[in-house]
Amino acid sequence: MGYFAPPLARLIDAFEKLPGIGHKTAQRLAFHVLNASKEEAQNFAEALVEAKEKIHYCSVCQNLTDAEVCEICSSTKRDRTVICVVESVRDLLAMERTHEYRGMYHVLHGALSPLDGIGPDDLKIKELLYRLSKEPVEELIMATNSNVEGEATAMYLCKLVQPFNIKVTKIAHGIPVGGDLEYADEMTLAMALEGRREM
Amino acid sequence: MGYFAPPLARLIDAFEKLPGIGHKTAQRLAFHVLNASKEEAQNFAEALVEAKEKIHYCSVCQNLTDAEVCEICSSTKRDRTVICVVESVRDLLAMERTHEYRGMYHVLHGALSPLDGIGPDDLKIKELLYRLSKEPVEELIMATNSNVEGEATAMYLCKLVQPFNIKVTKIAHGIPVGGDLEYADEMTLAMALEGRREM
Repeated sequence: MGYFAPPLARLIDAFEKLPGIGHKTAQRLAFHVLNASKEEAQNFAEALVEAKEKIHYCSVCQNLTDAEVCEICSSTKRDRTVICVVESVRDLLAMERTHEYRGMYHVLHGALSPLDGIGPDDLKIKELLYRLSKEPVEELIMATNSNVEGEATAMYLCKLVQPFNIKVTKIAHGIPVGGDLEYADEMTLAMALEGRREM
Repeated sequence: MGYFAPPLARLIDAFEKLPGIGHKTAQRLAFHVLNASKEEAQNFAEALVEAKEKIHYCSVCQNLTDAEVCEICSSTKRDRTVICVVESVRDLLAMERTHEYRGMYHVLHGALSPLDGIGPDDLKIKELLYRLSKEPVEELIMATNSNVEGEATAMYLCKLVQPFNIKVTKIAHGIPVGGDLEYADEMTLAMALEGRREM
């Protein structure tokens, strides 16, 4: 059998387009679908279409939502004077998982990366500036990733919002909790040293 | 954000039901779908439904096909006197990949496993016996997996087909090609020794 029956090949192809799914895994997933009930496949198909149709960006913070404004932005229990700027919705979720942060968010949907052709206009920066001009924001916390693109984006934003006279902070770098000094890279260790605090 | 918007949660759930996909990977895949074009999501959904609707078992060998009889069974270039018995379609594909085997197949869709409640009636054994009674089969090659269930199934079938007076063979066990003796387990090594051949 040099090929799969066309409907099966099409399904395998569809799975293979997903990130981190190779040809063999795609086959395994497709076989799983064929073994599952018809309702399950139907339900999966509907979930795909429904999610794609109904989920869009929150008009305020650019988080994913099926409403006009996301749950966080419409919450009354959140501190509206602080905005945490993150690169992606996944970063937002990671912050939420700490249960420590009760402010608002702003999702940039990327980071500045001239090499990849991603400039300020490709990020949700205009939307952030609009919020700063309308909302009673007192602090902007930069929680972009700790790589060249993330740092550059934080830097750029920091300069850009200077006219608003808002406090701009950056989350701390250092040794991960439970991490071993011995295995930390030099940069992290240097950052941890630089950011030392009195006990 | 304690939860995802319902359509997104539903999609994540659907992905999570797939084998080997945990909650985090399911999120990643769902986000990928949201970032992809609407056509792509639509295409994926259709592929799911179409595959589930059109793909079924070949009426002869129980391979997956969208036709009445699969490509292998309808081929005129295949040796119809040999049937290779495999547990799953994936095993069949593995055999095909060798490009060495030009006979027919029979897919059992499982192996005998009393502990899991899988008996002879749950496998495609009746279909195999029917073929043996109708087709000019001269040899039955047992290519079930090399574990307790696979071996038991091969044994069981071997006894069951005795009345047909057909040659029943079993694929060889031994050291994998490129494999190191040092790292082979005792059973494999013993099998390899037992199955030694003159050079």
